[in-house]
Amino acid sequence: MVTRTEVAKSNCFAGKILYVNLTTGRMWTEPTMAYAERFLGGRGINNWLLYKRVKPWVTPLESANVLIIGAGALVGTLAPCASRLSVDGKSPMTGGVGSSSSCGYFAAELKFAGYDHIVIQGRARNPVYLWIDEDRVRIEDAAHLWGKLVSETVSSIKEERGDDRIGVLAIGPAGENLVRGACIIVDQARAAGRCGLGAVMGAKNLKAIAVRGKGGIGVAEPQRFMEAVDRAWGKLGRSESARRRREWGTLWAAPVCNEIGLFPWKNFQDDYVEADRLKRISPQVYSEHYQVRRLGYMSCPISCSRIYEVKDGPYKGLICEGIEANDLWNFGGRLAIDYPPAILKAHHLCNEYGLDQDNAAGSIAWAFECYEKGLLTEEDTDGLSLEWGNYEVVIELLRKMAYREGFGDLLAEGSKRASEIIGRGSEAFAIHVKGQDSMEPMRACKGWALGCAVSTRGGSHTRGANLAELYSGLPKEVSERIWGIPAVPDRHSYKDKAKLVVYYERLQAIVDSLGICLLCSNWGGPDQLDPEDLAELYSAAVGREITGDDLMLVGERIHNIEKAFNVLHAGFKRQDDYPPLRFIEEPIRSGPARGEILDRAQFDQMLDEYYEIHGWDKETGWQRKAQLERLGLSEIAADLERSGKIL
Amino acid sequence: MVTRTEVAKSNCFAGKILYVNLTTGRMWTEPTMAYAERFLGGRGINNWLLYKRVKPWVTPLESANVLIIGAGALVGTLAPCASRLSVDGKSPMTGGVGSSSSCGYFAAELKFAGYDHIVIQGRARNPVYLWIDEDRVRIEDAAHLWGKLVSETVSSIKEERGDDRIGVLAIGPAGENLVRGACIIVDQARAAGRCGLGAVMGAKNLKAIAVRGKGGIGVAEPQRFMEAVDRAWGKLGRSESARRRREWGTLWAAPVCNEIGLFPWKNFQDDYVEADRLKRISPQVYSEHYQVRRLGYMSCPISCSRIYEVKDGPYKGLICEGIEANDLWNFGGRLAIDYPPAILKAHHLCNEYGLDQDNAAGSIAWAFECYEKGLLTEEDTDGLSLEWGNYEVVIELLRKMAYREGFGDLLAEGSKRASEIIGRGSEAFAIHVKGQDSMEPMRACKGWALGCAVSTRGGSHTRGANLAELYSGLPKEVSERIWGIPAVPDRHSYKDKAKLVVYYERLQAIVDSLGICLLCSNWGGPDQLDPEDLAELYSAAVGREITGDDLMLVGERIHNIEKAFNVLHAGFKRQDDYPPLRFIEEPIRSGPARGEILDRAQFDQMLDEYYEIHGWDKETGWQRKAQLERLGLSEIAADLERSGKIL
Repeated sequence: MVTRTEVAKSNCFAGKILYVNLTTGRMWTEPTMAYAERFLGGRGINNWLLYKRVKPWVTPLESANVLIIGAGALVGTLAPCASRLSVDGKSPMTGGVGSSSSCGYFAAELKFAGYDHIVIQGRARNPVYLWIDEDRVRIEDAAHLWGKLVSETVSSIKEERGDDRIGVLAIGPAGENLVRGACIIVDQARAAGRCGLGAVMGAKNLKAIAVRGKGGIGVAEPQRFMEAVDRAWGKLGRSESARRRREWGTLWAAPVCNEIGLFPWKNFQDDYVEADRLKRISPQVYSEHYQVRRLGYMSCPISCSRIYEVKDGPYKGLICEGIEANDLWNFGGRLAIDYPPAILKAHHLCNEYGLDQDNAAGSIAWAFECYEKGLLTEEDTDGLSLEWGNYEVVIELLRKMAYREGFGDLLAEGSKRASEIIGRGSEAFAIHVKGQDSMEPMRACKGWALGCAVSTRGGSHTRGANLAELYSGLPKEVSERIWGIPAVPDRHSYKDKAKLVVYYERLQAIVDSLGICLLCSNWGGPDQLDPEDLAELYSAAVGREITGDDLMLVGERIHNIEKAFNVLHAGFKRQDDYPPLRFIEEPIRSGPARGEILDRAQFDQMLDEYYEIHGWDKETGWQRKAQLERLGLSEIAADLERSGKIL
Repeated sequence: MVTRTEVAKSNCFAGKILYVNLTTGRMWTEPTMAYAERFLGGRGINNWLLYKRVKPWVTPLESANVLIIGAGALVGTLAPCASRLSVDGKSPMTGGVGSSSSCGYFAAELKFAGYDHIVIQGRARNPVYLWIDEDRVRIEDAAHLWGKLVSETVSSIKEERGDDRIGVLAIGPAGENLVRGACIIVDQARAAGRCGLGAVMGAKNLKAIAVRGKGGIGVAEPQRFMEAVDRAWGKLGRSESARRRREWGTLWAAPVCNEIGLFPWKNFQDDYVEADRLKRISPQVYSEHYQVRRLGYMSCPISCSRIYEVKDGPYKGLICEGIEANDLWNFGGRLAIDYPPAILKAHHLCNEYGLDQDNAAGSIAWAFECYEKGLLTEEDTDGLSLEWGNYEVVIELLRKMAYREGFGDLLAEGSKRASEIIGRGSEAFAIHVKGQDSMEPMRACKGWALGCAVSTRGGSHTRGANLAELYSGLPKEVSERIWGIPAVPDRHSYKDKAKLVVYYERLQAIVDSLGICLLCSNWGGPDQLDPEDLAELYSAAVGREITGDDLMLVGERIHNIEKAFNVLHAGFKRQDDYPPLRFIEEPIRSGPARGEILDRAQFDQMLDEYYEIHGWDKETGWQRKAQLERLGLSEIAADLERSGKIL
């Protein structure tokens, strides 16, 4: 128990990185401290280790890929919503950096056991799970768990270990079957969703990681830290943005976004759904008819999650955690389902199968549109009629995808690959960024669109995309303090949007590395935590003075690692930083934002500006040597130079 | 039957390309003629279709990869040894072009059925085989064949179709289990061996392709063609090189190569084995004690294959086709086995499992050396003692690899990947070129070494490597006529070797595209078929005048397609055109070539010269726009330009 006590007495970086080679069964550790100053923790350290440990020639689903789990630096402390876990590896969706994040209790349990990161190498010969019981780490047989749904897996492990407080992350059948968009489910209902890392875990024959920690996390300057915590909780307590989430969960966004043309309809044939129709699946409907209780995780002042129950109809008896705003976009919008319990059911099945719902809905929406256009027939779909809104078909397709059964085997490749396998012009209906299905409408808000398109992890709105342009009316001093611009131009304008994107790329890298929920930062609303708030929490916790600007520099460094990984591994260039063509070619058809479209020339200009702020080359999109050296990444500059991919 | 008659009455290009999409079950055809002028047939057309149909982001084992089967242009005619089948796809070993070739009857059957090429796209939902019965093509269930050895698969198909003359190519358990070095076995005992295309076939759930054709192949100018055939057969009848192969098969090369330091010993710790020891597995031993009969395929004037039988000892009762020179290198040399029946057994098992023996022996030899050096212990190897020459262990490891069982799962990745998964400095003992295990010693013959190192398909001696330097004593006029140089400098010299390599790269592309056996060209000896002989056969067959130089230009075009594929898909550059470090750092230890080593500076000079002859850039190794345009490949130049990988 000596190790445990030491950890508790020390600061929040006293942890270790645990390396596990599943091929050889060997394990070893290294102190996290070696990396903390340059990359903080969580996503930052994960992506550095990923960069260092995976060669560009390695393909995502082979044993030479690595899977890296990392708790954010502040996880386990009382910092608000410091619960985030980052999972990284080479992505089966994009071939570049695969990066995802989840809340839950797992990250804290991991730190309480003395570890900040786990680096999984190789592949086990048979299905296994990793069992971390304080400083005793074992690779356990998982033959009895293989094939099980996520909830069964989690309860089996808790039962056989006789401890209900164990943190568990697991894959479902989708990950086992190497479904390209499989995710990792954390603590039964939270998802490290995007980039297909569940398939990477499945390819390693790793069904789950379970951890139980009993140590504590010390901070360097307790009193100062508690003051910073109080201030941060106070700020979130007063925040209007936080209040909305507290009241409605993330669902609040659906009607608001629909009104401005940010709600996908039938695979983005439109970015608006008729308001009365949306009301059938509104936040109020879920709150009044299905909500059982609110739910929050580790140190969370918001509790935006919900438990729902279905009391009648075909899904009577279903009790599940979730849904989130994504579900309304994915199932309510992209697939046009308007029966609320069916969305709960689809959400629940994605969690049970370990399917990332953004990717799953992307493949299915592509297939629905192909069916509508006559490019797919019932001969292709195992006899299913892919009629918009038919939730029974959607639910059946989720199952088929997870088990790669019949038509599901094609959908399991994601819409980009599926479209290129069958051809027939179906490529036009695969809505993806860098190969990963995108759930983001991109016509109405120009800065949001830029952020979605340049995302290092492909389809995603948490790599630069932001809704700051919705706050164009804020006073000048607020706008200047946060984003460094006198006023945020409204959503129709392309001006200054590149600045907002770069700001949030860095901020997102920071919060993911500290383990703070992005929704509680000023990404979720200008009245929430900003880099200075985060810097004060971090400084007090580790006893090293760091400013908001210092943190933003670390964010820039982390973002540049991911960029370089993409250039080296996936060969991404400027051409890969564009949105799906549909948003440039077809305007929004209805609603208040009718007629909105992305203008190619103006997008190009915005992209030029974006590269300029980064110090990257406009023509290729590649990085520059001097800029990487300024960030202390000369090793990366040398790698890029050897490959001739730097300026 | 109309189609069949038409084919028979037409020329040898009247065939079709058959496209099969296993995902959708759809099939269609296109006339081969559309590609014949630019790429001839076989490997040439295969690689063009591969280039056009697979995107750089596709990984080798996913359904978006394609597998392309192609009969050479002259297959089915009486041209000598016109039996060759080319199989191409993106390689799981290198990530670049995967290209392999086999003899047998399959290629001719395919043409007799009216097809020159088969392009397999997508992935079947369940195990299937493709059954081509003249112009009736069906995707048949193969549930009953999955898991079967190759010989069982072939006889099952022949039995259920009630026809013993069916041509069959199939994968064994290794391909099913996605062993990275799995091969495709053609007609039960011939291998399309290198580049792991058996795994590509396995990943498509395609167990076999069976074909029966009853048509004939017409030629444009029958009398002229028969005269050309007579001359070619006559030349091979008089050839001393052909005589040696007729008498000893390919085994003749082992003692000859050993004496000049071209025989690998214990994973290339040396390139020589003590002559008395080699005698235990000499061609004479096999000929006197094990050979049952000689065997030749379609229109072959040599019959270099053999049937062997083991009459006593632990492998008593084994009857098999083979072995080839590779077996002596791989099992006799790299693994130091000196019991002749064990080499027959290992060879036979590779054919039954569908394992490429060059790749399998590479992984195993790497493991043996790691064990010798203490980097692997019995804890890693499932308790096996990896002692050099222990054939029982080798045979057990072949099985473990094929089924990815235990330690075999690591070996199934190939030595390069295996070494990077376990680390421990074992990378130094992975002898590979561009990721593919190499069976070629490279210290003694400098031109041979260059050819092996620059090979577009990775580890291989049939992509430029040649033994012309063994004929340094030939008269000036012979040397000038064939290679365009006054005399071939001997094997110790680096001079003019780049010229020989470029010559043979082109010649190899031609013979593989015409379907003529490389061993019968002047690659196998200067007294055999040269480009002029091939041009005359081809001109008479198709009724289009073409010279030897014209053919060599086509060879250059084909080679440049493969090069561009590698640059775009695998990012290969100059650094990937080097031999394994061992050959530059450790000299040959014993035998007449003792002390021979590759000199880095002189190799560099040879490589410079090689790029110069090709018109490629010396610094990067990349192609140039003007040169690709001269070859009629401006489409490729445009692709490379978009990726910034051209000069």
